[in-house]
Amino acid sequence: MNTADLGLPVDVPSTALFTDQYELTMLQAALKAGTAERRSVFEAFTRRLPEGRRYGVVAGTGRVLDAVENFRFDAGVLDFLRERNIVDEPTLEWLADYRFRGDIWGYPEGEVYFPGSPILRVEGSFAECVLLETVILSILNHDSAIAAAASRMSAAAGERALIEMGARRTHELAAVASSRAAYIGGFNSTSDLAAGFRYGIPTVGTSAHAFTLLHDNERDAFTAQVDSLGRGTTLLVDTYDVTEAVRLAVEIAGPELGAVRIDSGDLLLVAHRVRQQLDELGAARTKIVVTSDLDEYAIASLAAAPVDAYGVGTQLVTGSGHPTCSMVYKLVARAESADEHAPLVPVAKKSLGAKSSMGGRKWAARRVDEDGVVEAEVIGTGAVPADLAGRQLQVELVKGGEVLGRESLDVVRDRHAAARAGLPLSATQLSRGEAVIPTEYV
Amino acid sequence: MNTADLGLPVDVPSTALFTDQYELTMLQAALKAGTAERRSVFEAFTRRLPEGRRYGVVAGTGRVLDAVENFRFDAGVLDFLRERNIVDEPTLEWLADYRFRGDIWGYPEGEVYFPGSPILRVEGSFAECVLLETVILSILNHDSAIAAAASRMSAAAGERALIEMGARRTHELAAVASSRAAYIGGFNSTSDLAAGFRYGIPTVGTSAHAFTLLHDNERDAFTAQVDSLGRGTTLLVDTYDVTEAVRLAVEIAGPELGAVRIDSGDLLLVAHRVRQQLDELGAARTKIVVTSDLDEYAIASLAAAPVDAYGVGTQLVTGSGHPTCSMVYKLVARAESADEHAPLVPVAKKSLGAKSSMGGRKWAARRVDEDGVVEAEVIGTGAVPADLAGRQLQVELVKGGEVLGRESLDVVRDRHAAARAGLPLSATQLSRGEAVIPTEYV
Repeated sequence: MNTADLGLPVDVPSTALFTDQYELTMLQAALKAGTAERRSVFEAFTRRLPEGRRYGVVAGTGRVLDAVENFRFDAGVLDFLRERNIVDEPTLEWLADYRFRGDIWGYPEGEVYFPGSPILRVEGSFAECVLLETVILSILNHDSAIAAAASRMSAAAGERALIEMGARRTHELAAVASSRAAYIGGFNSTSDLAAGFRYGIPTVGTSAHAFTLLHDNERDAFTAQVDSLGRGTTLLVDTYDVTEAVRLAVEIAGPELGAVRIDSGDLLLVAHRVRQQLDELGAARTKIVVTSDLDEYAIASLAAAPVDAYGVGTQLVTGSGHPTCSMVYKLVARAESADEHAPLVPVAKKSLGAKSSMGGRKWAARRVDEDGVVEAEVIGTGAVPADLAGRQLQVELVKGGEVLGRESLDVVRDRHAAARAGLPLSATQLSRGEAVIPTEYV
Repeated sequence: MNTADLGLPVDVPSTALFTDQYELTMLQAALKAGTAERRSVFEAFTRRLPEGRRYGVVAGTGRVLDAVENFRFDAGVLDFLRERNIVDEPTLEWLADYRFRGDIWGYPEGEVYFPGSPILRVEGSFAECVLLETVILSILNHDSAIAAAASRMSAAAGERALIEMGARRTHELAAVASSRAAYIGGFNSTSDLAAGFRYGIPTVGTSAHAFTLLHDNERDAFTAQVDSLGRGTTLLVDTYDVTEAVRLAVEIAGPELGAVRIDSGDLLLVAHRVRQQLDELGAARTKIVVTSDLDEYAIASLAAAPVDAYGVGTQLVTGSGHPTCSMVYKLVARAESADEHAPLVPVAKKSLGAKSSMGGRKWAARRVDEDGVVEAEVIGTGAVPADLAGRQLQVELVKGGEVLGRESLDVVRDRHAAARAGLPLSATQLSRGEAVIPTEYV
């Protein structure tokens, strides 16, 4: 099935208004001043990882490509801008013809990143590039934050399955993007049907406490569920008494019972007891799913418990303490004039405090030691050293406005697993620390 | 202008898939068991406020009403559910006719809430109510979290203006809902054009550092901006040297310069210096806007600084440390049988730990002392005491599937200001504490 044919419930006709007003007013002023067409280079990067984190995960790139392609000002949007006097008529005329015709290079989605990594580089006229700031940052900041949390959780879970079930804890469309980012980070499935519909992520789910409470007793509820969903279903066993519920579950479904879910209590203790009880009842292959306020630490602490799958909600969709990244989108170089052959000049803010950054269009490469383990993120503005030329990180995503870099989510997910595996072992320690490799500027 | 005519860029044709799969599988099992039509009461509430917070803010109700109205399973969605084998044919037939025909009561949007407050009560058949769980919680949990942060910031800002500028720090559509929630919580405007388009929130914005860097020098940039946007514009003065930039700004725009914006450095110190410099240059009416990583504490700490407006980004859209609420949607009562006159039975989970809750359909009222100051949130399942009958909190939002409770955002915003003003003074202390009034169950 091609879901694109179905009328997606989560896409929007135009992304042009996911924009801060100042991008349009800057455009207006630059058009009038004759500077709008100066060739420009913008880069998205972060100055630091969230406190204590050892690596970041690039996620959202695929959504950025869609957003850039759909960044068009239709009549309704232009009417809005006109009636609210947000920009003048020459600017509205310019916007009516807008489509991005420049180039975008970036880290491929799923890659890891570090402070300073030029994750996305957008080149074109100042006018066409400046408009994309907000929508690019919204997507990268959100999706990368969720993917980073997911990656830590999947490292902690090892071979056990991870189910994303946080839709109810975040905005309904952020939830769909969160499922996507979680899948990239290593989750196996989602409860969110919109994510299944939009991105083809496997969906799961059977029942909640409400289903047990709807019925006159737990026996009726379990019988109804098994009758309808089959013996392979997952029965929720903590509405009343867990031991009685497990006994009843196996009585009704038999040893073919797919799984039991535990959503409260001391999961370590309860999982051991339930496993023992299931085994004694002959249901040795019935799995145990746990789902109560888990995060990467709770997942790690259950490593020795007989748990088969973890369902994670709140802590996944809120980035496990870091719900956003601090990516910025900065002009790093621009032409001396609007002449298309004018040379580029590196530029950077030079004011107070920690907000200054390095000007110039950057390349990035990841240096490895003789054992193939990554040892540094190397970033520069000049020529790429010969030993790093084959290890550059940026790939071409958009060329002359044409999107080149579309990939399947499974490719992205595999890339992330490989990128993480290539880092020093301490990358996946859950304890707080510095970035696992240094960023070097050459 | 009626923005509804323009083809909204932020709405979706159907909200039916903003749903966790288990809601559909429960429906299937209940349809087969003959229990799906049992009359049921679900309530949305939270067991606790985020740690340290003294009150919550109900936000998202208007979006919930839209979502309920648009909760329809069209052919594309049904095809998806069929092809993925998520539910069986009888369930798909039932879904094809779905529209919510029940009743919804709730706290009016903008009200404050406390632990246990029954913020939303959804009544109808189990089948029609259970499907709404995820979309209702997504909206309430997100929007209320943002509104609570906004309310604290607006209390800290007093009469000074607050600009929401966090779009780049959250999912692009969560950003639109965040602007809406921020406005309810007391913000005055937003940088997010989609929020202006969709909800009519005033939008603002002039320029970023990129605009200065695009030009050959600050003089050219300021001149270009003033030429195009007028002397009332806001000039960003911290790209290079603040003192020189302020001097140049007044030289170019004259004393009619609208405002200067400071986005880095020690804001308290810099604001004082800039104010003095502006006054000395005769620009006594030029305002100062500050915008660097602000939260409610930073805003409060700038109370003595000559600041006219605060722009808030990251901390607003991430709920200032609490990006989600912990609202749940629980079956609290259901009929003994599918007979429409069957009596309701209170139900509640009774298992391990802190997750148990109070069964039964609840009323809520807010008791005041003789001075009119709120002293308790009173919640009960029986008859409402005579002295509280006139102080009940829930209003009818949907009746027989028809939405009754639509309101303008300004009404909601005013309601929030009034509700907060009616709380004990300690409600707006920023220090961590307990809920400002107790919840009493009668």
